[in-house]
Amino acid sequence: MAASIKPLGDRVVVKPQDAETQTAGGLYIPDTAKEKPQRGTVLAVGPGKVENGTKVDMTVSENDTVLYGKYAGTEIQLDGEDVLIMRESDILGIVNG
Amino acid sequence: MAASIKPLGDRVVVKPQDAETQTAGGLYIPDTAKEKPQRGTVLAVGPGKVENGTKVDMTVSENDTVLYGKYAGTEIQLDGEDVLIMRESDILGIVNG
Amino acid sequence: MAASIKPLGDRVVVKPQDAETQTAGGLYIPDTAKEKPQRGTVLAVGPGKVENGTKVDMTVSENDTVLYGKYAGTEIQLDGEDVLIMRESDILGIVNG
Amino acid sequence: MAASIKPLGDRVVVKPQDAETQTAGGLYIPDTAKEKPQRGTVLAVGPGKVENGTKVDMTVSENDTVLYGKYAGTEIQLDGEDVLIMRESDILGIVNG
Amino acid sequence: MAASIKPLGDRVVVKPQDAETQTAGGLYIPDTAKEKPQRGTVLAVGPGKVENGTKVDMTVSENDTVLYGKYAGTEIQLDGEDVLIMRESDILGIVNG
Amino acid sequence: MAASIKPLGDRVVVKPQDAETQTAGGLYIPDTAKEKPQRGTVLAVGPGKVENGTKVDMTVSENDTVLYGKYAGTEIQLDGEDVLIMRESDILGIVNG
Amino acid sequence: MAASIKPLGDRVVVKPQDAETQTAGGLYIPDTAKEKPQRGTVLAVGPGKVENGTKVDMTVSENDTVLYGKYAGTEIQLDGEDVLIMRESDILGIVNG
Repeated sequence: MAASIKPLGDRVVVKPQDAETQTAGGLYIPDTAKEKPQRGTVLAVGPGKVENGTKVDMTVSENDTVLYGKYAGTEIQLDGEDVLIMRESDILGIVNG
Repeated sequence: MAASIKPLGDRVVVKPQDAETQTAGGLYIPDTAKEKPQRGTVLAVGPGKVENGTKVDMTVSENDTVLYGKYAGTEIQLDGEDVLIMRESDILGIVNG
Repeated sequence: MAASIKPLGDRVVVKPQDAETQTAGGLYIPDTAKEKPQRGTVLAVGPGKVENGTKVDMTVSENDTVLYGKYAGTEIQLDGEDVLIMRESDILGIVNG
Repeated sequence: MAASIKPLGDRVVVKPQDAETQTAGGLYIPDTAKEKPQRGTVLAVGPGKVENGTKVDMTVSENDTVLYGKYAGTEIQLDGEDVLIMRESDILGIVNG
Repeated sequence: MAASIKPLGDRVVVKPQDAETQTAGGLYIPDTAKEKPQRGTVLAVGPGKVENGTKVDMTVSENDTVLYGKYAGTEIQLDGEDVLIMRESDILGIVNG
Repeated sequence: MAASIKPLGDRVVVKPQDAETQTAGGLYIPDTAKEKPQRGTVLAVGPGKVENGTKVDMTVSENDTVLYGKYAGTEIQLDGEDVLIMRESDILGIVNG
Repeated sequence: MAASIKPLGDRVVVKPQDAETQTAGGLYIPDTAKEKPQRGTVLAVGPGKVENGTKVDMTVSENDTVLYGKYAGTEIQLDGEDVLIMRESDILGIVNG
């Protein structure tokens, strides 16, 4: 899916993964008790920031699954979905495989 | 429409899009319940900031539709309209098409 | 009018425009209800700041009409008038014509 | 054990050592009284941060036992385990032997 | 008058002008109602700060009348008088004539 | 005594000196009234921090007696002893003889 | 008097001058009403800080009488006396003669 937004600088658009709706034991978790997810899929990647006249390349790419802190990014409505726009420096790591 | 203001440095004049006045289901939303819009149209773009003696070019252009954070910019009355003046770094991304 | 003060560095002396004393409908606005103006005329301009040994030229000039944030600058009594001394970076833009 | 995450920049994935469950005298310590451990094992190491265009090499390596401050890092669930992702600058030292 | 203190770096010793003791209409102003003056005379000027190995020259000179913000500087007793020691960057401008 | 920890960067491991247990007059001081010591012995010294690609050498050495501020450093248990890990910049001075 | 401490970096050891114990009129001032002195004698001077690989020389010397702000420095007991260790940048000026 191509996001209909072009992030500026070193920003990244991330679609949070759905929070678990069942516990490991099979109980349904009510909405208010769900933990805010800290894992998501990269939808769009900015061109990278410019530092002292040099462009710094981005490390993450579209479709990467990434981990981020609980308070990272700004929530934006995009094409009817809640997505996050955050700086690449707010991304903690890329999940393999 | 040409704005009657020339922003300084890396500042951008943005006209916020009107907040939704109806819900998806057709109900009218009272003014006080409207979410502050986070999407607007660029009316004017500054020349870019100077960093260590080098001018940094601007990325957004007039008429771009841009996304910005809830608390970005300063509200100013311009030609009878409420517009925002913000730094380009407060703009999260450019909406396509 | 030449201001009797020479601002230091990148500072600018701005004379705030008088706040509106009448509403659009013709009602008089009492002093306490007047909005603090955010628009003024430049009376004097400093020589510009020095950054890493290089002088950075000023963008605004005397007699420009400028916009600034609500809390910009320091109020000073000058020749019997209340004026503001602010840094050029506190000026949001120059109003045309 | 290879961690299924690739940390970004100068970040490090650390698995905290289990807190003591017995006092020196043999008493069991209830969960709520356990001190948060400040010692752990490095599971994965980022490529190092880039500063002014130069990559800064990492000092810690996988499997090192490291000490860190009580509030260092962000807790993340990884492969069913609670791990910490922190910057190398949050690591105080490497324990020998 | 030569001050008996040599300010360090970009510091300046300023003797505040006496606050007005009479209103324009001739009423005496009690001490507690006097506005703290924001205008003073430069008694001594430091050699200038060193930035990245280069000395930055001072702009103000002894005997200049200067304006400064309400909370600028540190009060010090010098030769029985209350004077202010402030950095040159706290001085807003030099009053002419 | 060689510490079993290798501090990272410009960090230093310091063993605080025991607080006085008697006043000058011979009275015993209860534990809760003892002043936190601000003097200790250096057990281990990091390799020094890297600044803009240049290693900055350390000034303190193992076995130096050093002074530090009341809130300097992080407390860590090392080989059964409470030690402090602090940055060299938190050390105020080296005590002679 | 040579201080038995070698300050690190741009730090300076200052012995505060005794606070006045009598008012100008001859009244004794109780301890709790004494103003904290802001004037002292330099006992020891560090080698100077290193900035971007260049040592910055110190301006004050041993035995100088210096002025400093009310909250400057850290109090340390040295050879039975209360002295202050502060950075040279906390020193406002050197008193002549």
